[in-house]
Amino acid sequence: MPTPPIHRPVCNSRGSTIFLTGLPAAGKTTIAGALERWFVARDLTVTMLDGDVVRTTLSSELGFSREDRDLNIRRVGFVAAEVTRHGGIAICACVAPYDEARRAVRRTIEQVGAFILVHVATRLDTCEARDPKGLYARARNGLLPHFTGVTDPYEPPTDADVVIDTDKLSVDAAVLEIVNSLRERATGMVWP
Amino acid sequence: MPTPPIHRPVCNSRGSTIFLTGLPAAGKTTIAGALERWFVARDLTVTMLDGDVVRTTLSSELGFSREDRDLNIRRVGFVAAEVTRHGGIAICACVAPYDEARRAVRRTIEQVGAFILVHVATRLDTCEARDPKGLYARARNGLLPHFTGVTDPYEPPTDADVVIDTDKLSVDAAVLEIVNSLRERATGMVWP
Repeated sequence: MPTPPIHRPVCNSRGSTIFLTGLPAAGKTTIAGALERWFVARDLTVTMLDGDVVRTTLSSELGFSREDRDLNIRRVGFVAAEVTRHGGIAICACVAPYDEARRAVRRTIEQVGAFILVHVATRLDTCEARDPKGLYARARNGLLPHFTGVTDPYEPPTDADVVIDTDKLSVDAAVLEIVNSLRERATGMVWP
Repeated sequence: MPTPPIHRPVCNSRGSTIFLTGLPAAGKTTIAGALERWFVARDLTVTMLDGDVVRTTLSSELGFSREDRDLNIRRVGFVAAEVTRHGGIAICACVAPYDEARRAVRRTIEQVGAFILVHVATRLDTCEARDPKGLYARARNGLLPHFTGVTDPYEPPTDADVVIDTDKLSVDAAVLEIVNSLRERATGMVWP
């Protein structure tokens, strides 16, 4: 038997993408961050594709028209699919308001690994009451065109694998629910 | 000892990026394709980031100014780094004319795995004689602004790990030279 190589990292036998969708300020980034910590604490390698960050790199010149939003989600989906194909874990946290774009990502990724769609289903009035960046206020004042939930549509998913009500569930409980859902699907994954 | 999971794919213990740079029509895509087949034949998973393809997806709205070229290479580098981090193999085939952008990709990727820069150093007159898409002819006729080698600069790398002279080396010989160079660097990789 050959000597095992040094520094061999934990290797998932099956890659996975967790895609969180929801209104602005629904809590996607918070849950995504807690999920990332959960995996990293177990020596798993994670690629984080947070909408706000992606829009400064992969999609820095895109706007918020439907066409640009769809292209943004296609790019996120492309990277997540490659990560998944290589046995990694990708966490996407994007508003992703359009059903068809989300389904296209699912179709692509399910060819190469596990995919779960998580609807962070915080109610619009809760999101607007939180409004940590003051974006809802600006949108209501007509200063932000194409703002999802105010001047742009959000199509709630009918194919979500997990629905999180952040009014009722703590972040830790949400993470466990998502991880358990992934366990059912990523049957080839080596769980620590 | 736990039962090994089913369908466990070949897993590299250390990811790698092979970055091919060179003038338009230098032969980057041809060599990249042959490299990909070499790895796939050995059950290794490869992400191909070919410049022409990337420009229809990740960078569909970018032009050929220095700023846009650099942003394109940053995006390619971002995806390659994530693939490498997950233990995969990324092959990038891009003109990538600017030294600083190439070095930035190297710096990023060497933090997470192996990186080799391959200069496909076909002479300009050879590239122009090939001109499979007629782009050099159009550039000479003033129809293509910002065309590398004609109206835009190409900074030959001084830090190439492999230099390929396609006038002297067959595609197969180029692949072997690149693979051998990678073997020296990707010391943790499990070679079939």
